[in-house]
Amino acid sequence: MSKKLKKIGVMTSGGDSPGMNAAIRAVVRTCAYYHVDCVGYYRGFQGMIAGDSTPLTARSVRNTINQGGTILQSARSKEFMTKEGRAKAAANLKKEGVDAMILIGGDGTFTGGQVFSKEHNFPVIGVPGTIDNDIFGTHYTIGYDTALNTVIEAIDKIRDTASSHNRLFFVEVMGRDAGFIALNTGIGAGAEEILIPEEDLGLDRLLDSLERSRRAGKTSSIVVVSEGDKIGKNVFELAEYVKENLPFYDARVTVLGHIQRGGRPSCFDRVLASRLSVKAVELLLDGKRDLMVGMMNNEIESCSLDQALKGKHNINKDLLRISEILST
Amino acid sequence: MSKKLKKIGVMTSGGDSPGMNAAIRAVVRTCAYYHVDCVGYYRGFQGMIAGDSTPLTARSVRNTINQGGTILQSARSKEFMTKEGRAKAAANLKKEGVDAMILIGGDGTFTGGQVFSKEHNFPVIGVPGTIDNDIFGTHYTIGYDTALNTVIEAIDKIRDTASSHNRLFFVEVMGRDAGFIALNTGIGAGAEEILIPEEDLGLDRLLDSLERSRRAGKTSSIVVVSEGDKIGKNVFELAEYVKENLPFYDARVTVLGHIQRGGRPSCFDRVLASRLSVKAVELLLDGKRDLMVGMMNNEIESCSLDQALKGKHNINKDLLRISEILST
Amino acid sequence: MSKKLKKIGVMTSGGDSPGMNAAIRAVVRTCAYYHVDCVGYYRGFQGMIAGDSTPLTARSVRNTINQGGTILQSARSKEFMTKEGRAKAAANLKKEGVDAMILIGGDGTFTGGQVFSKEHNFPVIGVPGTIDNDIFGTHYTIGYDTALNTVIEAIDKIRDTASSHNRLFFVEVMGRDAGFIALNTGIGAGAEEILIPEEDLGLDRLLDSLERSRRAGKTSSIVVVSEGDKIGKNVFELAEYVKENLPFYDARVTVLGHIQRGGRPSCFDRVLASRLSVKAVELLLDGKRDLMVGMMNNEIESCSLDQALKGKHNINKDLLRISEILST
Amino acid sequence: MSKKLKKIGVMTSGGDSPGMNAAIRAVVRTCAYYHVDCVGYYRGFQGMIAGDSTPLTARSVRNTINQGGTILQSARSKEFMTKEGRAKAAANLKKEGVDAMILIGGDGTFTGGQVFSKEHNFPVIGVPGTIDNDIFGTHYTIGYDTALNTVIEAIDKIRDTASSHNRLFFVEVMGRDAGFIALNTGIGAGAEEILIPEEDLGLDRLLDSLERSRRAGKTSSIVVVSEGDKIGKNVFELAEYVKENLPFYDARVTVLGHIQRGGRPSCFDRVLASRLSVKAVELLLDGKRDLMVGMMNNEIESCSLDQALKGKHNINKDLLRISEILST
Repeated sequence: MSKKLKKIGVMTSGGDSPGMNAAIRAVVRTCAYYHVDCVGYYRGFQGMIAGDSTPLTARSVRNTINQGGTILQSARSKEFMTKEGRAKAAANLKKEGVDAMILIGGDGTFTGGQVFSKEHNFPVIGVPGTIDNDIFGTHYTIGYDTALNTVIEAIDKIRDTASSHNRLFFVEVMGRDAGFIALNTGIGAGAEEILIPEEDLGLDRLLDSLERSRRAGKTSSIVVVSEGDKIGKNVFELAEYVKENLPFYDARVTVLGHIQRGGRPSCFDRVLASRLSVKAVELLLDGKRDLMVGMMNNEIESCSLDQALKGKHNINKDLLRISEILST
Repeated sequence: MSKKLKKIGVMTSGGDSPGMNAAIRAVVRTCAYYHVDCVGYYRGFQGMIAGDSTPLTARSVRNTINQGGTILQSARSKEFMTKEGRAKAAANLKKEGVDAMILIGGDGTFTGGQVFSKEHNFPVIGVPGTIDNDIFGTHYTIGYDTALNTVIEAIDKIRDTASSHNRLFFVEVMGRDAGFIALNTGIGAGAEEILIPEEDLGLDRLLDSLERSRRAGKTSSIVVVSEGDKIGKNVFELAEYVKENLPFYDARVTVLGHIQRGGRPSCFDRVLASRLSVKAVELLLDGKRDLMVGMMNNEIESCSLDQALKGKHNINKDLLRISEILST
Repeated sequence: MSKKLKKIGVMTSGGDSPGMNAAIRAVVRTCAYYHVDCVGYYRGFQGMIAGDSTPLTARSVRNTINQGGTILQSARSKEFMTKEGRAKAAANLKKEGVDAMILIGGDGTFTGGQVFSKEHNFPVIGVPGTIDNDIFGTHYTIGYDTALNTVIEAIDKIRDTASSHNRLFFVEVMGRDAGFIALNTGIGAGAEEILIPEEDLGLDRLLDSLERSRRAGKTSSIVVVSEGDKIGKNVFELAEYVKENLPFYDARVTVLGHIQRGGRPSCFDRVLASRLSVKAVELLLDGKRDLMVGMMNNEIESCSLDQALKGKHNINKDLLRISEILST
Repeated sequence: MSKKLKKIGVMTSGGDSPGMNAAIRAVVRTCAYYHVDCVGYYRGFQGMIAGDSTPLTARSVRNTINQGGTILQSARSKEFMTKEGRAKAAANLKKEGVDAMILIGGDGTFTGGQVFSKEHNFPVIGVPGTIDNDIFGTHYTIGYDTALNTVIEAIDKIRDTASSHNRLFFVEVMGRDAGFIALNTGIGAGAEEILIPEEDLGLDRLLDSLERSRRAGKTSSIVVVSEGDKIGKNVFELAEYVKENLPFYDARVTVLGHIQRGGRPSCFDRVLASRLSVKAVELLLDGKRDLMVGMMNNEIESCSLDQALKGKHNINKDLLRISEILST
């Protein structure tokens, strides 16, 4: 392994996701294992610009693997989108003696990192951390699995009331422009319908399907709606529309909101975060740079940040078929 | 004990709450224990009017003690508010040979039950089941303790994001016109402010308090808002108002909604439901009627439905003081 | 209020219980609120002897209310049972300027505190923190409610396997010499039998009851056994005995063990810990000493440490009756 | 698709695992979708021998997707190991008009199924359901992901006490002869050491490692031990051995036991069970037989039962390396 690297920096950026602390911990401990210094920057690019950092040792990250959120905090930085902002960050890293940065976050984080790397010839490695799972180059992002469980536990609770009261519930879940969360939790929670941005079923088909359910004897139903759904109505308008057209149903709306970002990470996310982050450090020590680590087919791989940013992680269309069969 | 009762009916009415199944189970098994028949009516008063019932034996309620919702379903019935509706219900009960009814629900349920009992000289006993805890004559209603835990688990998750992003979160919780849920979960989740209907702090005091928190170095905050809060703004307007006046804060809103009604009941609620319901059956067998059972000072007591409906269950004002001390 | 107190110490001792951190936090913040200094001693009496302490401010206890265990750690101290040990502790407290101590723990903790208080004329207040609920002078101890929920969640899981395989499970739960946990979780989990130290049912009655269950068509059963049960056999011998006498049953044993002590505290425990600890500080500021705070009939009260140590907190025998009725 | 199949049977066999109900539900609903009859056999092969079955329609499986255990119950059958037993089963299936069976279970289930299929020329498809993840031909078995989460939640709780009391905990987890559960939960829970059957570290290495941890300032530790560990001592002997050799540590043992088999399935397991079972039915309808469905590289595939039984699903040795790095 290359001996040139003496100090690696790490930060978290964008929306927080469960498992980010497990990722930070693994970066720190892998550095310790290879006798490389490690420094954490607070609030993502913002802390790099402000020079707001802290040395991290194996002990700094004790008892963090099971904590939600991120001990390094996160933020979105407008200043980093400017040449001046990035120059300040580069100067701070140089002053601190940091040789490379590990960036834990999503699309926006990697875009910033890529520009920065080229502009200042500074090695970076991206670690995909977001609940949305919308990153090309990895089958799973850190936090996604935990969010799935948070959502189905919430829908299981809503199902209790739906069944008890013969109600139709529209449950809005996160996912930005991607339907991963909606599609998988819809199947997992046994939803009668799933609305995702990747597939516009149309309002008529929704009404047809609910009408068919009712005739088949179903008195309560759950419809999972992705926040990025393109059906042209928000979830409240959707519920109103259905109420008007299918007065049989007592329709209600629940927007799950920010509970989906927090909570103790699942085992899957802790192990994923650990494996990805060990790899990220080892790639840097091997002289590699400007890559994103990912889990493809259960193995830890890497691709260029370019590929990660240009590619699109598509949902598995077969899941739509599964969903239709199972809501029979 | 009186030997006159041969068949007892049971139903759940109003909003469902975790532990209603434990209550039904205890009614059924206590009937079995005393060799009295038991019959369940579906969808509350609605099922009584429709004659929609099912015989219940010890086996019918196996593996239900830990299930949320209510296996007898629930509903609000407009027809039962009419003399004709109640006459239909009375006729059905007579036809079925039901000698007395146990009504599991809240205020509305007990009001209906009381009118019915007087009009048709029909014995009823109320069992307080609602997450709102707003019933006089019992320190705890069935489902309240579970709802408290559901809420703090949700706020714990939101806290992860609040801390990671330096955000101010307004979290709206249920409770109708009572602040029990908001006050207790506010203390339990370590909220910086708690807004309840029983105490109008005023908007100025809220701004002052948040400003003081900020100066004391707090960068994130949780404000728990009761749905019945009388501050004159809904939770979204409140957040907007604070954003305008305290631009420092990145304020967000989460409305917890229906997840608060569902879920597996806590041990406290299962034991409470069991004790109250055994008592309800035994009171009927003892020739008592038109009472509500309740837990006062850890003992199972009863009061007249009249008292339960006229009295007001007040929040413990000392908890407001506790909350202020602890958000120091 | 008395102005004489300048510095209050706090420690946790004995077995840890969920909510101890909420109690520490409330002590610290109440001190801050009343402008009194606060210092924490590590590992209970052991830290007092060693002079191992840390100043605690409102910020030291941020984000601890929802954490299990105790940030001040806990231990049992043999040295504190000696006059010399206690003298060292007294000297350390004097040197540090500590005017009074708040002791969070159980029986053993209060016994040590009482001896110490008399010997060195040093004011102490006890706060009952133990999952066992075996303290006189309070209806609930901190951690007990959380342990109940941990146990029923575990038994709910075991019930899945018991039902799927027609098995009889013996589940051993904690509680030392008291049956509170076993009795309440037994009812809450719908156990067929509950064995507690306070009531020796005898082995014959257990066999009779299981035989009756089988004849009534039950193919799976849960028996909850308190660790302090006096039936003369440990839980493994018990299972063997039943297997020999009732070969119909495929009997298994699960000892829940230390998972019962940990985990995030329930809302009930967080609020209880907060209220008890605010009161403890206020009693000291009022010039009171050598008391234990407790919750009696939903109100925070206090009694002398003497009373707390001499009295016995009895189980509610009516719960045994409830359990018998419900396992019909 | 082949039109010959008119009726498909389904059963669960071997140890129950979370997600088996989601699998049954998906079999039933896929049959309904393709207008094929479906019948469930109780208690695995035992029910086939006894002719103990029930017709299953889309409605029979409502609200089961989130339930642990198996509504068809499970058992191990000695009689099915005999030619006579299998002949009885074949006769029953013929009488009932069942054309093919879907067998949900593990190794033992598939072995039985394969013999039966050859002996009676009867089509079967295996669906891998076991928490142990020890089946060749699938990266994940149904129930494994849920078990991982159950275990880390338990260890998180134990960690609270370990940290509070400076203790060393040995936690025994399930997994039969495979270390999947121990290895992944060990990493996920941040265990200091992981003992699995696939790698005998030797007792000396364990002592060395714990001694090194202590010198590095760790005062508490978790060692995860697989039930099938080959170190030559059971977990209690292991703890004794360490106590004798490292008296510094206050070592304790927790055997997690049957809680690992139960509980609500994770989203991952619900989706996995759904996908595998839809495929199983579709393979039969396509005229395929004697296969096992599995998830390889996130896609649903199939292999012959022969291959599934002869192959060995190996742990990812890289995880051992990760574990060593992270316990630095």
